[in-house]
Amino acid sequence: MLHASICTIGDEILIGQIIDTNSSCISRTLEETGIKVTRMLSIGDDRDDILTNLRHELEINDIVITTGGLGPTKDDITKSVLAELSGSKGFVTSTEQLEIVHQILHSRGLDVLDINLAQANVPDTAEVIPNRLGTAPVMVFHIGKSTLYSLPGVPHEAIGALPDVIQHIKTHNSLTSISHRSVMVFGLAESALSKKIESWENNLPSDMHLAYLPNPLTGIRLRLSIYGGDAADHERRIGEQLAALHAILGDLIYSFEDDTLEHRIGTLLKASGKTLAVAESCTGGEISHLVTTVPGSSSYYLGSVTSYAISVKEKILGVPSATIREHGVVSAEVAAAMAEGVRRALGSDYSVATTGLAGPGGDDRNPEGTVWIGVSGPRGTVTARYQYKNDRKRNIERFAAAALNMLRKYIEE
Amino acid sequence: MLHASICTIGDEILIGQIIDTNSSCISRTLEETGIKVTRMLSIGDDRDDILTNLRHELEINDIVITTGGLGPTKDDITKSVLAELSGSKGFVTSTEQLEIVHQILHSRGLDVLDINLAQANVPDTAEVIPNRLGTAPVMVFHIGKSTLYSLPGVPHEAIGALPDVIQHIKTHNSLTSISHRSVMVFGLAESALSKKIESWENNLPSDMHLAYLPNPLTGIRLRLSIYGGDAADHERRIGEQLAALHAILGDLIYSFEDDTLEHRIGTLLKASGKTLAVAESCTGGEISHLVTTVPGSSSYYLGSVTSYAISVKEKILGVPSATIREHGVVSAEVAAAMAEGVRRALGSDYSVATTGLAGPGGDDRNPEGTVWIGVSGPRGTVTARYQYKNDRKRNIERFAAAALNMLRKYIEE
Repeated sequence: MLHASICTIGDEILIGQIIDTNSSCISRTLEETGIKVTRMLSIGDDRDDILTNLRHELEINDIVITTGGLGPTKDDITKSVLAELSGSKGFVTSTEQLEIVHQILHSRGLDVLDINLAQANVPDTAEVIPNRLGTAPVMVFHIGKSTLYSLPGVPHEAIGALPDVIQHIKTHNSLTSISHRSVMVFGLAESALSKKIESWENNLPSDMHLAYLPNPLTGIRLRLSIYGGDAADHERRIGEQLAALHAILGDLIYSFEDDTLEHRIGTLLKASGKTLAVAESCTGGEISHLVTTVPGSSSYYLGSVTSYAISVKEKILGVPSATIREHGVVSAEVAAAMAEGVRRALGSDYSVATTGLAGPGGDDRNPEGTVWIGVSGPRGTVTARYQYKNDRKRNIERFAAAALNMLRKYIEE
Repeated sequence: MLHASICTIGDEILIGQIIDTNSSCISRTLEETGIKVTRMLSIGDDRDDILTNLRHELEINDIVITTGGLGPTKDDITKSVLAELSGSKGFVTSTEQLEIVHQILHSRGLDVLDINLAQANVPDTAEVIPNRLGTAPVMVFHIGKSTLYSLPGVPHEAIGALPDVIQHIKTHNSLTSISHRSVMVFGLAESALSKKIESWENNLPSDMHLAYLPNPLTGIRLRLSIYGGDAADHERRIGEQLAALHAILGDLIYSFEDDTLEHRIGTLLKASGKTLAVAESCTGGEISHLVTTVPGSSSYYLGSVTSYAISVKEKILGVPSATIREHGVVSAEVAAAMAEGVRRALGSDYSVATTGLAGPGGDDRNPEGTVWIGVSGPRGTVTARYQYKNDRKRNIERFAAAALNMLRKYIEE
């Protein structure tokens, strides 16, 4: 099995100004491709540090993937250090990347500056994989027995380049095949899920590997994999295990592929030709934002009202002021009235509403982290209360995910 | 200056199941204390890997901080490997930590199991810093000329232990200072900014270090730092450079501290006692979401209408259907009517609105990535058009950030 290490280059990660999310994504992708990640490393924009560390990583790994340090400004020195490391005699221009740089500058209405054009220059020792999402290309260096892939640090560029990098690795190495299937589960903590499927998990064939991949917005992705062997046969065997898992988990499973709640809801609504509206308070727009990240959502999504102020709940959503006075803003009654109000105001088939306290602040009846969710549709309105214990940002995510899951279950019924 | 490295131990980070947030926080704290972080490392729960990597880190650093691998289950082996690494002859019980373990089990209503009590046992080579937030204590090892601090992996425990760790470091070392200042810039690409401040940058004193930290949602953070020396003097010198930078960049700078557009807008609105409403189309709720990530935003934020469907633009926001027919949905006129409509409907002092095409799809007049932004307030309504070329998700972010920046400038004027 190939061994790889991932190295982020940049002071901003090293001194803790930004959190490294690239390494985690790259690691997951390598692992799914059948490559063992031995370690991840973060170093600063310093010539000696980059040279010393990369030399060491190249000695003990088949593949080294770096991200960062490829910007046009002076603090970014990865390219020149890689030129030195690979014994380059000079720089050459990648005409393909130069074309992309021109397109990007043109489409953004930016002047063509020399430092932008220089982004298309690479050491003569580098093989280029063009980067359509940014100005810095991916560079491939063969150094000793190892291969180094230099990716941009901007997350969507790094992640966007990954499929080409994986393809390059596959072309130049013989990898053991891996058969994978994912199942999306929402509504249980990891430990509770583990307990619930304990005996199923313990009886899995010894060549089958189960991974728990929790995510606050999408729930837990369970991934079953088998390394090597006959892919068709493995897929059949994994399918059998997933059917058994479905019998245990029922509608806690919302998809049998790598999926999100908002995408699943979109699939259901498109299939039925029904429409959706959203009313938010404590989630502040996050649910609407998630719904509209799905391409094509305009075919079923009408829109939303974020009623942060009580006056907006009353005026736009038509929540009776008496309901608010009697039950409080954070209540089942207000969640229901908001869901019904937005459904009526926007004329949708379904709606979902939230009212709660993301924090900081709360009281005895509704401590910080409390949310009431209302879902309304052809079969009437249902409400539920959830309680979380995170900071404001994480609570908003949890509330939004719980609301989407409740909507998903209502539509599926 | 002391050199430190941070090492997370655990398969879950190495294979990308969870994102490492501890290292970033520890690094920031060390930097602020005047300790240079040379690198960050993630390795798996493997005896040989832990030994090899920690030996190497201890050789080249004064301080090594590890997190993780201290749980009570079998896969966590950090403690026994640290015993081996430090030449321990056996384990001793920390009576102070044992007391805490009992308290924690009692308060959670859990049975007292041997594996829990064993959490208070440490190698006889370790100095103990009690951990009141969890069962595993912080352990300090003096190995060769270096000191290793072993912290728990659970983020709130690791972060909670930091003040005691920093105190321990300060007590045992004399530290140099680091002076940092950040400036937030929005409205220029990194390369254009670099060009604009080129001569200022070239004339920076040689001990002053400039870093560009771009982020699609917050713009570019410029960070100036000086290592060592007299902190008060450095802060004065950095302040002088920032004043010169301000003269060059003007209102492209929106803050002289680490900040976000939505937070800056909140600061301005709170100071003036004015209110805000938002109308979104292509941004789908992202602007409202960003505004409400700011704690206390309910004091100035009334709410938003996401009008994904034309019917919602007409019915709720009162955009005349003639305006849509004549100018098209993606137009200055509709952006202005949406901004004015939501300001009227919700009764706010200011408003911002977006209408555009995040993609996929577009036409000749309005290609994918086009957005019209309207800002309305006491001085009337202004509009502007922006054009981006990213994928849907990234376009939505760019649109939202451009809208927030336009609103920020309008309020500041």
